[in-house]
Amino acid sequence: MTAIILIEPQMGENIGATARSMLNFGLTDLRIVNPRDGWPNPKAVDMAKGAKEVIHNARIFSSLSEAAYDIHKIYATTARPRDMVKPVLSPEECGNAIHSNIRKGEKSAIMFGPERCGLDNDDITLAAAITIIPVSEIYPSLNIAQAVSVMSYEYFKAGLKAENDITDQKKSNAASAEDIANFFQHLEEELDNKDFFRVADKRPRMVRNIRNIFMRADLTDQDVRTLRGIIGSLVKKKFDKSV
Amino acid sequence: MTAIILIEPQMGENIGATARSMLNFGLTDLRIVNPRDGWPNPKAVDMAKGAKEVIHNARIFSSLSEAAYDIHKIYATTARPRDMVKPVLSPEECGNAIHSNIRKGEKSAIMFGPERCGLDNDDITLAAAITIIPVSEIYPSLNIAQAVSVMSYEYFKAGLKAENDITDQKKSNAASAEDIANFFQHLEEELDNKDFFRVADKRPRMVRNIRNIFMRADLTDQDVRTLRGIIGSLVKKKFDKSV
Repeated sequence: MTAIILIEPQMGENIGATARSMLNFGLTDLRIVNPRDGWPNPKAVDMAKGAKEVIHNARIFSSLSEAAYDIHKIYATTARPRDMVKPVLSPEECGNAIHSNIRKGEKSAIMFGPERCGLDNDDITLAAAITIIPVSEIYPSLNIAQAVSVMSYEYFKAGLKAENDITDQKKSNAASAEDIANFFQHLEEELDNKDFFRVADKRPRMVRNIRNIFMRADLTDQDVRTLRGIIGSLVKKKFDKSV
Repeated sequence: MTAIILIEPQMGENIGATARSMLNFGLTDLRIVNPRDGWPNPKAVDMAKGAKEVIHNARIFSSLSEAAYDIHKIYATTARPRDMVKPVLSPEECGNAIHSNIRKGEKSAIMFGPERCGLDNDDITLAAAITIIPVSEIYPSLNIAQAVSVMSYEYFKAGLKAENDITDQKKSNAASAEDIANFFQHLEEELDNKDFFRVADKRPRMVRNIRNIFMRADLTDQDVRTLRGIIGSLVKKKFDKSV
């Protein structure tokens, strides 16, 4: 469902290696805008090895807007942030964003520019976000097929993570938003009873800080029961051993 | 400091592309055990592009144990888990493990087998752990230079993360272990006062569960002060508005 778009790629070998990397990580929808050496390209077929089907099914377009006709979100892979008001994502964040789009029924594409000069600003304008692969300053020039590998790898990894998250949640019984809201209400009522917040002006910020501590703990059902038990216990009158 | 070891690589092009990927992600120490086509290899030099220095400085060995003479931990990249009692790490975990080794003053190498057959069991025996790049079942055959890219990328990313973690900790003032221990003692004393644990047998497990909830929240100094304030407030006698 997720597409790779190459803008004006120059070397057939790179297109073939791109297809191979794509299929390694489960991607099959290759779209090419104005390949320099025309199409079909025997070098691309040769370099694709076991991913020749990706090359045979690749579609050629004459502009990005045509290539992205059914795409909701385009992610532009660039070497550095451009002077544009666009969110900048790491490859990992980009992989997660694409899977979050998939859950919303939206189709994404990861876009790569020509080997020598990268994407031009007109094409980047159409992107939802920019994504930058972190590279060493010593030699930042990443081969396009290697860039496709890294992006496709993070896309595939995010898919595995999305599956695991669903399984984990089932396993661990993550607390529902309602249970958590009730826990916060319980805690904050008891704190109000004891005049914990003192200054009314500061209450909203203090409440937010306290909620954030517990939100970071990824509470389960059982955690919420435990925490509510703790509150109930702490506010009791002192335990009387003689009773 | 971290090395890449190629065992019996076949294609000079793959060695060159490996060097390029290495340098993209800040790695320069290439060691090769028995390259099939001998050494030096002009195809390797050609494919290395801007990373020719890595090829010129590569060292050739006749066995893994010679190549790893100064290495503390070898990570074996394989396509599937082998029938061996070895930890299996994701590329991300491997990157983190290497940086954790670096902090301990230990030197690591990531090892890759020949293109066609992968690493043999004798070489894997010398590894501290196996690492497996997640790939699609449709076409799991990853080119060796792409595998080096993914592993080197995760290594580089883990390095950036390690730097950020240090900065984050400075910024956020993570609570010290002592402060956290004092907070737990405070909470557990108050809970004992209120007979929260009731059954003595169950106390250790209940204490562990409660501590785990808070450990997951990555508490800062300020969080610990807030939580201790909450405990102090909850155990107070009911607030008397007339006072």
